Amino acid sequence: MRLISYARPGGAQAGAVIASHRGDLVVRLGPFTVEEIISDAQTLAATRGVVERAAASPEGLPLLADVQLLPPVRPGKIVCLGYNYRGHVPAGEDPTAGDPAYPDVFVKTPNVLGAPGDPVVLPRASTSVDYEGEIAIVIGRRAHDVPLESALDYVAGYALFNDISDRDWQGRSSQWELGKCFDGFGPLGPELVTADEVPDPQDLLVEVLRDGVVTVSQSTATMIFPMAFLVHYLSQVMTLEPGDVISTGTPQKLPQAQDEHRPLGHGDAVTIRVAGLGELTTTFIDPISTNQIGDRHDS
Amino acid sequence: MRLISYARPGGAQAGAVIASHRGDLVVRLGPFTVEEIISDAQTLAATRGVVERAAASPEGLPLLADVQLLPPVRPGKIVCLGYNYRGHVPAGEDPTAGDPAYPDVFVKTPNVLGAPGDPVVLPRASTSVDYEGEIAIVIGRRAHDVPLESALDYVAGYALFNDISDRDWQGRSSQWELGKCFDGFGPLGPELVTADEVPDPQDLLVEVLRDGVVTVSQSTATMIFPMAFLVHYLSQVMTLEPGDVISTGTPQKLPQAQDEHRPLGHGDAVTIRVAGLGELTTTFIDPISTNQIGDRHDS
Repeated sequence: MRLISYARPGGAQAGAVIASHRGDLVVRLGPFTVEEIISDAQTLAATRGVVERAAASPEGLPLLADVQLLPPVRPGKIVCLGYNYRGHVPAGEDPTAGDPAYPDVFVKTPNVLGAPGDPVVLPRASTSVDYEGEIAIVIGRRAHDVPLESALDYVAGYALFNDISDRDWQGRSSQWELGKCFDGFGPLGPELVTADEVPDPQDLLVEVLRDGVVTVSQSTATMIFPMAFLVHYLSQVMTLEPGDVISTGTPQKLPQAQDEHRPLGHGDAVTIRVAGLGELTTTFIDPISTNQIGDRHDS
Repeated sequence: MRLISYARPGGAQAGAVIASHRGDLVVRLGPFTVEEIISDAQTLAATRGVVERAAASPEGLPLLADVQLLPPVRPGKIVCLGYNYRGHVPAGEDPTAGDPAYPDVFVKTPNVLGAPGDPVVLPRASTSVDYEGEIAIVIGRRAHDVPLESALDYVAGYALFNDISDRDWQGRSSQWELGKCFDGFGPLGPELVTADEVPDPQDLLVEVLRDGVVTVSQSTATMIFPMAFLVHYLSQVMTLEPGDVISTGTPQKLPQAQDEHRPLGHGDAVTIRVAGLGELTTTFIDPISTNQIGDRHDS
């Protein structure tokens, strides 16, 4: 299933997205939150039934394009990975030779959470804002000290996450946190795609486009610490709860993108794209110009 | 006021502590949470009235010793400071000479939160658990980009916090997070003492006792980044919300305590003590021996 949360007069509403000849449509899902749906097997099964019946007679369902998306879940924890993709390895060399012994893990605070389509207002204090296009694991079952073999059983599904970072603040001290925790520096979505629709999470191509130009293109096959290991490893430390997010790290930018990189400025748009998980586009705007996205300038 | 949260059949109950010849007593505070009380000036004022009236006729109020304390607040964020106290400075030297340019900030996840008196179960995966006795700022008003001069206006009050840390996990990678984020590694309390009862937060003696021996004794006057600056600085990055906690860092252990330090083991007890803020004692126990605190052994 493709689960979403969207705005309704009554507040956040859970929904499921189905394809149709009219385009993607939204099936409204009862009284439950997405967290409630993914954390209870019966509710999840019942939801699948509701979606199948709706798909059989989709007349009158609203277009996805007509709803205002919210983050698919509101994570109690947003745990992020530092360096977790291998760079280019020349033929004949051991690709694992440069692997670190342990994953480098940091945490983003709840104020970073952003909805798909929300512009990110470049903070007044920020000076060197960068993007990191990542695949986020969304936890479906409470996970404490879970074995590697069954770790993926605790994963509800996957979404896209932009680990937006201010490189200046990130580098001011030994800990990266403040560069990572500006308000809005964590857009999540557009959908939570349930794990059953992702045959192999270690065989996904992560692409990032900056203003239409591909700047990142790398497969999760080159991850140093695979998703199952991350759930297993983190669960030894912290009890993971339904809705918690583990963002699995960003591949390096392509060489030309690294050479041409400049901090994100007013009007810049970054799109994360993964087949099967959709696209997450974030536009960056100056604090003084919230209503002038078109009025572009370098900043 | 001395605000607490405690367990009742209906759930968490906010209260205020008043002294009496019978010992500390608990005044039950209406329907509000502590977060609701500290974040609304009218509710705070009304609460002061309730407490004053109760203090005038304290007969029948329950003893503080008879209630089960919960964390005084449930922070949406727990933001912590690394190195933030100066070491011993020989006479004649500039005490600020070794100060870092910026504070070193990290984040603890919500699963660390512990109640006063809760034992901390030493995680199976932990190998080198240490304590850090700290003063926690509790935010009272939403704070975004607040000037230094008025930063303390956004502080509801202060509590004690034990930034429990597994040194092995903390040192496994560049980021300390995993050593800091084990379940229960953040006892908070015993009370939220409102700021009006703390004439100068930069003139408090932080003492820590391990199994009755003083291992830390240093004044907040030796802080590198004072509390007002921390609120001002962090608010440039993240919007701080009522109930959010900023733990202001730990003084170094006394030389002898450093020499004699060993990881915390089953049955060890750590007490943080600050005049006016009370005492926060945490006992550490093995996971297999939750019912055998008396049955002490090295581990």
